[in-house]
Amino acid sequence: MQGTRPPQPAATYPPTDRTVPTRSPDRAAYDKELVHAILDEGYVCHLGFVRDGAPVVLPTLYARAGEVLYVHGSTGSRPLRAAGRAASGLPVCLTVTHVDALVLARSAFHHSINYRSVVVHGAAYDVTDPEEKRRALDALVDHVVPGRAADSRPADKKELAATAVIRLDLAEVSAKLRTGGVNDEPEDLDLPHWAGLVPLRKGYDTPLADPALAPGTAVPGYLAALGC
Amino acid sequence: MQGTRPPQPAATYPPTDRTVPTRSPDRAAYDKELVHAILDEGYVCHLGFVRDGAPVVLPTLYARAGEVLYVHGSTGSRPLRAAGRAASGLPVCLTVTHVDALVLARSAFHHSINYRSVVVHGAAYDVTDPEEKRRALDALVDHVVPGRAADSRPADKKELAATAVIRLDLAEVSAKLRTGGVNDEPEDLDLPHWAGLVPLRKGYDTPLADPALAPGTAVPGYLAALGC
Repeated sequence: MQGTRPPQPAATYPPTDRTVPTRSPDRAAYDKELVHAILDEGYVCHLGFVRDGAPVVLPTLYARAGEVLYVHGSTGSRPLRAAGRAASGLPVCLTVTHVDALVLARSAFHHSINYRSVVVHGAAYDVTDPEEKRRALDALVDHVVPGRAADSRPADKKELAATAVIRLDLAEVSAKLRTGGVNDEPEDLDLPHWAGLVPLRKGYDTPLADPALAPGTAVPGYLAALGC
Repeated sequence: MQGTRPPQPAATYPPTDRTVPTRSPDRAAYDKELVHAILDEGYVCHLGFVRDGAPVVLPTLYARAGEVLYVHGSTGSRPLRAAGRAASGLPVCLTVTHVDALVLARSAFHHSINYRSVVVHGAAYDVTDPEEKRRALDALVDHVVPGRAADSRPADKKELAATAVIRLDLAEVSAKLRTGGVNDEPEDLDLPHWAGLVPLRKGYDTPLADPALAPGTAVPGYLAALGC
């Protein structure tokens, strides 16, 4: 049965001059599903911006909502104040990196890291609409612990005013990955050095309840779902 | 018994305009031992630089040798090529972040992350001296897996030429940390929401030997020392 199909959203981000790496271009990817998966697995990004002509890179929290990233900070932080002032937004580069394994080759040269990273270029804007800000703050909490926003006291007006959120569209985006095993030179394979992958341990350890918590308060199911 | 003491190196990095944060200045620290410990615990940094007026942030490997950081890349990478060209070095910001725990407060506003980060500002220079480059590459391998450099085939001349290393002095440096427990408002303490810390799992899982490794090759002791 054939019919007219609704227009499909593009499945990839169009590469640009600055999203095509000069180094290992075969490791670059523009697939939206892959980019979303890498972004959704993390919650700490490294946000870069330019201050007095020099680069600044700060760690901060982020969350994805469709093709938008929300980045969290207090109203006192430098990038957020700058974004709030600039009508054209603040040029930023937001990078998220997951390290999956150490790659130990027989040769020092082929030592490497298995990783997945996403780099987003764009202009960041201060979120001023109270409703969008509230949704963004919920997204930031739920991005770290899915289900947590509904199980906490929402921000009141004063807290909302004391929190700054910036938004950054996912438009100029690339992922970069190294996966797989050791790539030694054929003539090195018989060298007497151990070679292989050392996977990083992921996840969370047992939650530690706040001492002021009422005795018997159960650890919520959404923490068990995280694998705690 | 008294005598003249040799001059002691300064125990802290002098704060500068850009290493004193506008946000949560009480979380900033300049103690060299603390900075070194945070740097030595990691091996992936986020390196920021300015390209065509816009910020770029890329993940890469680093190692510390005294008050110098070495940063690794191939000769094809953009920041390293730029550093190689500039006589005054390439202005960079190098940031290392460890996430230690999620902080789940009763109020959405007081949700946080326990983390330790170091931010280094400075000019990066291409390492051209072959001996310094060789020492830097050993340091980069040993920084990830202490003891590994001596148990791998050293880089030959061609591999050494294909690898770029930049150096960055530890001079304008700050650490920023959040430690401790939940900081809820007193009036929120009786709310029926679980509160506490969720520590991140750290370390490594069981090493996966390369399929081409000779059967019976033992996992080296320096991997056991990592807790694999």
